[in-house]
Amino acid sequence: MTLDIVRFIAEKRDGREHDEASLRGFVAGVASGAVPDYQVAAWCMAAYLRGLSPTETAVLTHAMALSGETVDLSSIPGVKGDKHSSGGVGDKATLVAAPLAAAAGVPVAKLSGRGLGHTGGTIDKLESIPGFRSALSIDDFVAQVRSVGLAVAAATERLVPADKRLYAIRDVTATVDSLPLIASSIMSKKIAGGADVIVLDVKVGAGAFVRELDRARELARAMIDLGRRLGRRVAAVLSNMDQPLGYAVGNALEVAEAAAALRGEGPADLVELSLELAGRLVTLATGEDAAAARRRLEGLLRDGSAAERLRRMIAAQGGDARVVDEPWRLPQAPHVREAAAPEAGYVARLDALRVAEVALSLGAGRRRKEDAVDPAVGVVLAKKVGDAVERGEPWARVHARTPEAAEAAAAALQAALALSAQPVPRPPLVHEVLEERLSPALVSDPRCLPRPDRVASGRSSPP
Amino acid sequence: MTLDIVRFIAEKRDGREHDEASLRGFVAGVASGAVPDYQVAAWCMAAYLRGLSPTETAVLTHAMALSGETVDLSSIPGVKGDKHSSGGVGDKATLVAAPLAAAAGVPVAKLSGRGLGHTGGTIDKLESIPGFRSALSIDDFVAQVRSVGLAVAAATERLVPADKRLYAIRDVTATVDSLPLIASSIMSKKIAGGADVIVLDVKVGAGAFVRELDRARELARAMIDLGRRLGRRVAAVLSNMDQPLGYAVGNALEVAEAAAALRGEGPADLVELSLELAGRLVTLATGEDAAAARRRLEGLLRDGSAAERLRRMIAAQGGDARVVDEPWRLPQAPHVREAAAPEAGYVARLDALRVAEVALSLGAGRRRKEDAVDPAVGVVLAKKVGDAVERGEPWARVHARTPEAAEAAAAALQAALALSAQPVPRPPLVHEVLEERLSPALVSDPRCLPRPDRVASGRSSPP
Repeated sequence: MTLDIVRFIAEKRDGREHDEASLRGFVAGVASGAVPDYQVAAWCMAAYLRGLSPTETAVLTHAMALSGETVDLSSIPGVKGDKHSSGGVGDKATLVAAPLAAAAGVPVAKLSGRGLGHTGGTIDKLESIPGFRSALSIDDFVAQVRSVGLAVAAATERLVPADKRLYAIRDVTATVDSLPLIASSIMSKKIAGGADVIVLDVKVGAGAFVRELDRARELARAMIDLGRRLGRRVAAVLSNMDQPLGYAVGNALEVAEAAAALRGEGPADLVELSLELAGRLVTLATGEDAAAARRRLEGLLRDGSAAERLRRMIAAQGGDARVVDEPWRLPQAPHVREAAAPEAGYVARLDALRVAEVALSLGAGRRRKEDAVDPAVGVVLAKKVGDAVERGEPWARVHARTPEAAEAAAAALQAALALSAQPVPRPPLVHEVLEERLSPALVSDPRCLPRPDRVASGRSSPP
Repeated sequence: MTLDIVRFIAEKRDGREHDEASLRGFVAGVASGAVPDYQVAAWCMAAYLRGLSPTETAVLTHAMALSGETVDLSSIPGVKGDKHSSGGVGDKATLVAAPLAAAAGVPVAKLSGRGLGHTGGTIDKLESIPGFRSALSIDDFVAQVRSVGLAVAAATERLVPADKRLYAIRDVTATVDSLPLIASSIMSKKIAGGADVIVLDVKVGAGAFVRELDRARELARAMIDLGRRLGRRVAAVLSNMDQPLGYAVGNALEVAEAAAALRGEGPADLVELSLELAGRLVTLATGEDAAAARRRLEGLLRDGSAAERLRRMIAAQGGDARVVDEPWRLPQAPHVREAAAPEAGYVARLDALRVAEVALSLGAGRRRKEDAVDPAVGVVLAKKVGDAVERGEPWARVHARTPEAAEAAAAALQAALALSAQPVPRPPLVHEVLEERLSPALVSDPRCLPRPDRVASGRSSPP
């Protein structure tokens, strides 16, 4: 079809709904480059201000998912899982939850982007492991999911190219913060990733992309709805991101902490969130009772099965699997400096965003796409909100490349800490979990992408 | 200043008002190319949907006017006039009204674009005169206004470059039809053109850019307000454009008709509108009583002074001034074919847009910027709305380059005609005239651009 792009933009400008064919034509033009940047930009602003209907969002998501390479996991027996986080500080939950779910019999296939922002993404964290290869061909990725039950690899440029271009334009035209555009961006990549069941960790709070619970809930619902329309079962865990998750913020430091959690020595919040996320993957995939799944996962954590699954994944991707038990094999920063509490009290606030900014200043994250991250540097907290501290007691340590950087970071870090003379309650970790109640027909065969003509109807299978 | 362009776009996206400095920074970035197309496009869509306040519109207009070369007419004694039409079919009123006003003692300095659309612009019409040069340097333009009292020249690329770029982007992003953006585009060029008093002919109807009287009135008021804020006295004539103005549609054909009007042989509607437009220029410039100005202009038409002024302008710009009296010296199309009335009746409708489409198909206009126009071709009506016709009587003639084109055009033209068995009243020509009542302080020295710091206050002079 030939799309009259000016008329298409005018349609959204006037608040009208696009028909499926023109929306697919637009996405094809975004992916191929046939629609120039300025027209994409004008449409993004119109969509930001006028909104997209659930049907439009589903068509957009589906068309973007099919705009490039897709992963076909259908040759692997069973229901395959994937996990996505909307991004948080110290969020290494994938490294714990994915091996847990895999150990419980749910093959986990996760393609992940590199972090652009304060701290590295999951791929950056894994690449701090000596020898680890994140660049797998799709064939190797699928083969590893089949043999190991677990693979975490870098998304290639060829995966969902329409979203890549759309996001790059949104980023520079003040149109990122649109709920349907965010939901379709995330879900198009999950759909292209090929898994049947998807658990979304939607972070809420000072250190998250979404700061209000209401908006996180709205985003979660939109993504669950997209899953329903596109034949994927989706659950969303709304988790607190006011303070960092666990204690470690920085790539190798986070791998070490995740490994500790898998060895039964991890921080309580990381373990708890990982059990929650893995539990949802298991119940979505198997229909198993939640309490039973939880008991099973706790057993797999205790008996070392989950840790073993991570070791096998690291080894399969060329990495040194000994890091799971011997964290000193990970890159170490040469300079460590303590941040001491200025007075006695209870930790009232540990501002995740400020901690992240300090980690970024140390080199743990990227300011621009082309920046390299330093795998060794970062921040390790010694306290969390609710803990008591003595005056002068170290409440965090910075791991830095130079003494000057360590000094500056330790000083800057103090702004992240707020103390209270009164005891402070520990904040909730998981706000709530959203999950669609599904009809049996949808559960029976969630494997394939629905035919395009089914997307717009809002049902991927007959009810 | 350095403008954070993403923040600037977000400001308009959220419906907030830009401050003057950032809006000026944006326009500078549009003119220089520092702001890329996609960010301009996103801003245009945000401005389209969120609107611009009168102050923002004035700052935008002023900044655009100053974004390139400007014309300084201050060395010419008296109050200088300019005239603009929002574009209509068969609209050759400039060729009559401008010489009239000049003959009445108001120097007229008009820079004009080339027509992009169904029929040529004023420059295209003038260029059908053998030898006529429309490309004048600004110095030559000003010198001719001083010596002849009248110059009509092509706007150069260096005049209002910010508007040129903004318009080119709006044109392909469905953001043309925004009232403040239309008003600022027109008025920025008038401000840069240097005249003190400006008469706007805002066309309303089937063959016009604006189809509803309400919207035309709103546009006219916005432009009058811009004039007030930027130290220009502006009147707006809202005129009917359901049927073509006069009988001729096509470049040389329109020059011939305008010359006939100046010789006292012109169609009544063209003469009437031209007297109205010239009259407003005279009253704005001199404060003369409207009825007295009208009588004076009728005399200048009758005694040949206005025709003489056009001859002098044509001669000054290298053209063959004899065309004013000897229209056969203009390019003639070799094939003329009549369109006959299919039955007897009264002309109920002469669809200006359809007539224009036929003229375009004959080659009188441009589909793309780079197209050449054929000066000789076009349509000449024999009837206007309200006239009686006999069955088989010619109601129009097409002037074409080939017999085939003539045949096809005459057939296509029939769709423009609608007949009624009952007598049809003649439609009004001028719907209304809008003009700001000005304070004496504003009248006293309307010559100079206000200082930038006065624009935002909404007054160009103390009250």
